[in-house]
Amino acid sequence: MSAYSSKTALEHARRDALAFSLANCIRALSIDAVEAANSGHPGAPMGMADAATVLYKNHLKFDATAPDWPDRDRVVLSNGHASAMLYSLLHLTGYEDMTKEQLKNFRQKGAITAGHPEYGHAKGIETTTGPLGQGIASAVGMALAEQIMAKDFGPDLVDHHTYVFMGDGCLEEGIGQEAISLAGHLGLGKLIVLYDDNGITIDGPTSVSFSDNIPKRLSACGWHVQSCDGHDAASIDAALTLAKATTDKPSLIAMKTVIGLGSPNKAGTESCHGSPLGAQEAAAAKAALDWTAEPFEIPGNLLQEWRIIGSKGKEVRMAWESRLAQSDEALQAEFLRRTARTLPAEFKAAVADARKALFDKPQKVATRKASQMALEALAPVLPELIGGSADLTGSNLTRVPALDSQFKRGEPGRYIGYGVREFAMAAAMNGMMAHGGIIPYGGTFMVFSDYARNGIRLSALMGIGTIYVMTHDSIGLGEDGPTHQPVEHLASLRAMPNLLTFRPADALETLECWELAIRNRNRPSLLALSRQAVPQLRLEESGQNLAARGAYILRQVGDGERALTLLATGTEVSLALEAAEKLTKDKGIAVAVVSMPSWELFKEQDADYRANVLGTCPRIAVEAAAKFGWATFVGDEDNVIGMDSFGASAPAEELYETFGITSDAIIARAKALLGL
Amino acid sequence: MSAYSSKTALEHARRDALAFSLANCIRALSIDAVEAANSGHPGAPMGMADAATVLYKNHLKFDATAPDWPDRDRVVLSNGHASAMLYSLLHLTGYEDMTKEQLKNFRQKGAITAGHPEYGHAKGIETTTGPLGQGIASAVGMALAEQIMAKDFGPDLVDHHTYVFMGDGCLEEGIGQEAISLAGHLGLGKLIVLYDDNGITIDGPTSVSFSDNIPKRLSACGWHVQSCDGHDAASIDAALTLAKATTDKPSLIAMKTVIGLGSPNKAGTESCHGSPLGAQEAAAAKAALDWTAEPFEIPGNLLQEWRIIGSKGKEVRMAWESRLAQSDEALQAEFLRRTARTLPAEFKAAVADARKALFDKPQKVATRKASQMALEALAPVLPELIGGSADLTGSNLTRVPALDSQFKRGEPGRYIGYGVREFAMAAAMNGMMAHGGIIPYGGTFMVFSDYARNGIRLSALMGIGTIYVMTHDSIGLGEDGPTHQPVEHLASLRAMPNLLTFRPADALETLECWELAIRNRNRPSLLALSRQAVPQLRLEESGQNLAARGAYILRQVGDGERALTLLATGTEVSLALEAAEKLTKDKGIAVAVVSMPSWELFKEQDADYRANVLGTCPRIAVEAAAKFGWATFVGDEDNVIGMDSFGASAPAEELYETFGITSDAIIARAKALLGL
Repeated sequence: MSAYSSKTALEHARRDALAFSLANCIRALSIDAVEAANSGHPGAPMGMADAATVLYKNHLKFDATAPDWPDRDRVVLSNGHASAMLYSLLHLTGYEDMTKEQLKNFRQKGAITAGHPEYGHAKGIETTTGPLGQGIASAVGMALAEQIMAKDFGPDLVDHHTYVFMGDGCLEEGIGQEAISLAGHLGLGKLIVLYDDNGITIDGPTSVSFSDNIPKRLSACGWHVQSCDGHDAASIDAALTLAKATTDKPSLIAMKTVIGLGSPNKAGTESCHGSPLGAQEAAAAKAALDWTAEPFEIPGNLLQEWRIIGSKGKEVRMAWESRLAQSDEALQAEFLRRTARTLPAEFKAAVADARKALFDKPQKVATRKASQMALEALAPVLPELIGGSADLTGSNLTRVPALDSQFKRGEPGRYIGYGVREFAMAAAMNGMMAHGGIIPYGGTFMVFSDYARNGIRLSALMGIGTIYVMTHDSIGLGEDGPTHQPVEHLASLRAMPNLLTFRPADALETLECWELAIRNRNRPSLLALSRQAVPQLRLEESGQNLAARGAYILRQVGDGERALTLLATGTEVSLALEAAEKLTKDKGIAVAVVSMPSWELFKEQDADYRANVLGTCPRIAVEAAAKFGWATFVGDEDNVIGMDSFGASAPAEELYETFGITSDAIIARAKALLGL
Repeated sequence: MSAYSSKTALEHARRDALAFSLANCIRALSIDAVEAANSGHPGAPMGMADAATVLYKNHLKFDATAPDWPDRDRVVLSNGHASAMLYSLLHLTGYEDMTKEQLKNFRQKGAITAGHPEYGHAKGIETTTGPLGQGIASAVGMALAEQIMAKDFGPDLVDHHTYVFMGDGCLEEGIGQEAISLAGHLGLGKLIVLYDDNGITIDGPTSVSFSDNIPKRLSACGWHVQSCDGHDAASIDAALTLAKATTDKPSLIAMKTVIGLGSPNKAGTESCHGSPLGAQEAAAAKAALDWTAEPFEIPGNLLQEWRIIGSKGKEVRMAWESRLAQSDEALQAEFLRRTARTLPAEFKAAVADARKALFDKPQKVATRKASQMALEALAPVLPELIGGSADLTGSNLTRVPALDSQFKRGEPGRYIGYGVREFAMAAAMNGMMAHGGIIPYGGTFMVFSDYARNGIRLSALMGIGTIYVMTHDSIGLGEDGPTHQPVEHLASLRAMPNLLTFRPADALETLECWELAIRNRNRPSLLALSRQAVPQLRLEESGQNLAARGAYILRQVGDGERALTLLATGTEVSLALEAAEKLTKDKGIAVAVVSMPSWELFKEQDADYRANVLGTCPRIAVEAAAKFGWATFVGDEDNVIGMDSFGASAPAEELYETFGITSDAIIARAKALLGL
């Protein structure tokens, strides 16, 4: 049981009669939606309804009739299981697509009212939440984006807050702390978090597993911290007012609440967290709340009040529209371009120039270095590009002159030092993408994609173009050893739907992959880049971005009919080429070497193209990574020259020998396969 | 630059002449090892050498000649990049296998001195570290294990501390906070953390990305916090003494240090973090430290001092040995059994009884429920089994009567409420495994294996038998939607070397997989378990654990030569069976249905067995997960009835229809494939 009794809380909620009635609209709809679905989480919506009412009624800058207004305040429901509250709010305030029918179809097939808020399902869902901690971390990204956009376009066009609802789970998850620490460090004053301190977790009272002093902990991380009565409208309002007035620190408002407020027998207990109240208790709760309307019905006067709340931002928005219309023409165009997520006209030429430079003067460099070169060429024409690294800038080579301004407290810049916080980096980048106006990329060692993995997943699930720069992409990392050498990561990332995993073979392909990553604004890209140098393999301009096909015949070595196809990616393409040349020389056979920077894009090509690239002769794959998955191209894992185990600590060249990823091994397998 | 000047720090280090000289042995060896490798991290060992000296000299309970002594204090180097310090300490104190030759071969092929400490490479490496934050989280597991073992065997046999060295990175990583929060909540008084507060991170001063007030933050999490001068032996000693005297809270000692202390030009800067000092600076550093010995040489008197430190625990250990020898015979035998990681004699019978019960009365249950039933049967004979869940006990069904005692502050129990901290749960379980005497398992939703992923990887890399209970293993999760539905997870886990991924088909297979998970003490197991019920498919005792073969012919439906093989796992095996029966009925063909609970174990079978199971006829795979990887068994992903996308929010049965994972889809594919 929460220390805050349900009875007292209800009395406090009643102090402001209108606010109480409005909050009961949220409670009733949430109860109804969960009952109709016979699944869901009624407790959190019922507990947070009073705070949500005050936020939307008195503070939130939004216009339900123009949900895409770029300067709206953002609301993130980090405790995404409270989705019924968000849907109820969107319905009540008049978001057009959030109909009553949708509430009735909560959690059903085809409805926009999914179990957890899904980005893109409905206007007003600012980001996908549910996996705990990622909402607050994405909100940090939104707050970063707001500062960057405000710097670029001025406070007349960009000046909004990011509000977050958050529960205990987000504070228990490590990523929550990463986000809190980063936000405190950077003093994100427009980030305001409402912490639903209800003392209840799935397994029981939070005291089962959690006893942090949250106000003290966040204060230690540079936050402005307040406590308030989460059911007293005046208390909530005062806290929000003071939070908004505090501009140099992010704000936490720790709201003492009762989960499931109104439910006579379940309020204040875990039993109303993740299950419907049940018909009887639902009725009892409505009675306790003096709610007499039919399920999904909102009394006309209350609906009218809510609709006033939903449109109260209209004037502010129209004033903003005229400021935009009256602003400098170039600024206006640029603002519209960036918020529409279209690339600048100059991008194409910048790519062409960078290609030309590589053909004029081929480069033998590590692909991480090639990535930096690509960024040097492209960043100057992409003011929306925001870089960063999880404390590995010098290794990831993610910093370039155009992005050399470090994002500091009160001083937005184009390069973000995320610290040793890979997961928060991923989620913050997702938040920047969702916010709009920004193309974020961030670097770490590829092995630590593990730490950020569910953030990458959310990029893919949301369908947003977050870019991951993952260097040191194999045992080629060398001496740091197996903890730092990715092995299974390529396979595990390729298995993820809707993610473009790129592993370029040389400087030119790296540039091509970067072009693709930037062009793909509706799905994330991950670039797997090498520590070690590779020669440039393509020396003549074909006029085409060949990486865009996912795989292509880089070279056919030898004359006559193709006897063997070698498929390879990244640093192993040059190894495959070496083997092909030896095989041709020794055995007189023709060997096609296929570079395969992206499986996903290759699978999207038409059947003829794929058949032509793969050929009908035997195939061998070469990749310094787990063999898992390659059978789809080479039939049998025996035809993969790859890794069967974790790596080891030694110089890179020795590891390639040790693990048998050599041209000799390719040749031996080819001879066995072809009976030579 | 650190606020603490290198000059002052050096003066403080000199206050205790002997301690300074001893610390310089660590510094010199670390410098030499990194120089010889021409790669590595000299800065942290040089900065922490003074503290390490005081710890080993005055506090640490250990005996270098008996490194496996179960009651030794544990030392975890959470900032694993400081590995040279640990290797130096092991060499200096006389661990037999840590020879001078090994130090000279730091980071080289075949050496036990890997870039980061690798569990199993050498005695005295208590766990693998390097991926930041996991060391401290594993240390929390060790401290938990110590309390549990002390409760089971009494303080005469179990009474030791866990010491951790930790840098800023571990405090920036979210998992660090998860571990801190859990340790504070449970009041792990014998956990003592030495925080190397050197103010430097890879990208520069920590102020670039980190400004938490660490003492305040940890104090908010229930820690006993002290600050000390990390170069003043007396200051360090006093802090350690007080930390040991504080038994109701874990202790943080924030040591103000200078990275690379002694290096005249690089101390206090990031330049000595991850690169060799270089010959010139190495010489200058040695000069500044009055160090005149040749590389890798330790003056005889100092080596003697260190060897005294290394053997000072001998008497204490021998006293412990006699206490063990004199203890109750059964207790002694049980202690030896558990620390030797052998299973009790009763285990076999418990498995047999549980099997019999299922054959006597077949069960139609969700495999998560079957998992609970297996635990109910096996836990009573396995006192080393320690359960837990990341706040999803009621969903994971991880709690059973034998483990019903909740681990509380000051009151060790057999069930741990890890809170919403999946990653710390994984790492803590690894720590328990590494500590010895415990078989840990922990549950969460399978999709959140993402959050814990690098912890699972470390289980696999370390070769330890941590058990992961991952429920809600597919779109069968239903209404919670795509954020909560694993899709790519099976593939991504199967791609990981040395991990046993199990997906049992029914109650019996679940029991068999549990048996295998418990028997496999040298590699981790992950059980993917369903939310939804499945019928029991095997109804007659074969006398064999068939899951141990990884895959087996569950049933051949129809007469005559096998025309088709259906491979399936988990909840889809019954679907495959249904399709097989329809196909036989409609088309008169014989169809073999293969249940494939573990790809890894199947791949370990001999070729004949594999060929017999797979058959020579066409094959189709059925699994409600990404198709990725299945081509290795069925040639073409078109022959996989699986997922091409993320899931959706709706009732489970509807999702199976929506995503085409139905017996009709299997039949349609079979007809196309066989030309029927």
